[in-house]
Amino acid sequence: MPIIDIRVVAIGKIKEKFYREALEHYAKRLQPYARLETVELAEGKEAGRGEFARTSLLEDEAQKISRQLRDTAHLIVLSPEGQQMSTEKLAAYLKNLQRINPRADFVIGGAVGLAEKIKQKSDLCFSFSLLTFPHRLARVVLLEQLYRCFKVIRGEPYHK
Amino acid sequence: MPIIDIRVVAIGKIKEKFYREALEHYAKRLQPYARLETVELAEGKEAGRGEFARTSLLEDEAQKISRQLRDTAHLIVLSPEGQQMSTEKLAAYLKNLQRINPRADFVIGGAVGLAEKIKQKSDLCFSFSLLTFPHRLARVVLLEQLYRCFKVIRGEPYHK
Repeated sequence: MPIIDIRVVAIGKIKEKFYREALEHYAKRLQPYARLETVELAEGKEAGRGEFARTSLLEDEAQKISRQLRDTAHLIVLSPEGQQMSTEKLAAYLKNLQRINPRADFVIGGAVGLAEKIKQKSDLCFSFSLLTFPHRLARVVLLEQLYRCFKVIRGEPYHK
Repeated sequence: MPIIDIRVVAIGKIKEKFYREALEHYAKRLQPYARLETVELAEGKEAGRGEFARTSLLEDEAQKISRQLRDTAHLIVLSPEGQQMSTEKLAAYLKNLQRINPRADFVIGGAVGLAEKIKQKSDLCFSFSLLTFPHRLARVVLLEQLYRCFKVIRGEPYHK
């Protein structure tokens, strides 16, 4: 089975050292199971005020994100309104993906969310939780869950 | 309105420095909004094998947990099978709690879960996600969400 090739496209830099270290920790653990690349994009710029400011920021971010998506990749966006799955279901989804398209782009939006057009383009809009997580924490959850899923797929115990 | 008095009772020590730092980070941010105390308990001991080993471990952990719960406190246990809420709903729940009982115990089980009898005793069985999180990550999510909820309750912007 081909190793899965994952690109995480995320808005916003990670300021906190502990979050960066958490990401490095799980990225390292993922090494035997996946090729992982992370593209960290600067937050979008606002033009105008109020609701228009938000829309223009999302539009700016959507353009930056689109440039980083690979045409042939399976596109999974993370959004609180998306579909939830248990770790076992997500593992089964990824196992199937390894067979049909071992190239996956994951998108994590910034503080104000993600433009609709990116969500509409996605193959899966996935939600961790009804709760609103900060995007840095969402990135940690994503890598930890990917690692956990590969352990499930391989039938290996989760290294505590 | 009285400041809420929170006790987090959690099974398992935190080995990773980055998780400890993340917890300290959010504990510090919570200071203006809540009195926070954390009781970290050692993992339970197994007696016997197979399913019985799991049951005996959960029973051992349940006893340790019970000794740390305050009779007069509102009891919230975290479990993947619990009820999910958005951050806004959780904030409304906590706001109400501040009025009716400003003392809350939160319980986070260990690697194999939480004994049924602790769940049955709870006032709320709360779930972050259908996903299985490591207990260290669950502790970070809990403190971050508590902080986020108090920001919502006070109508203050979330400090990024």
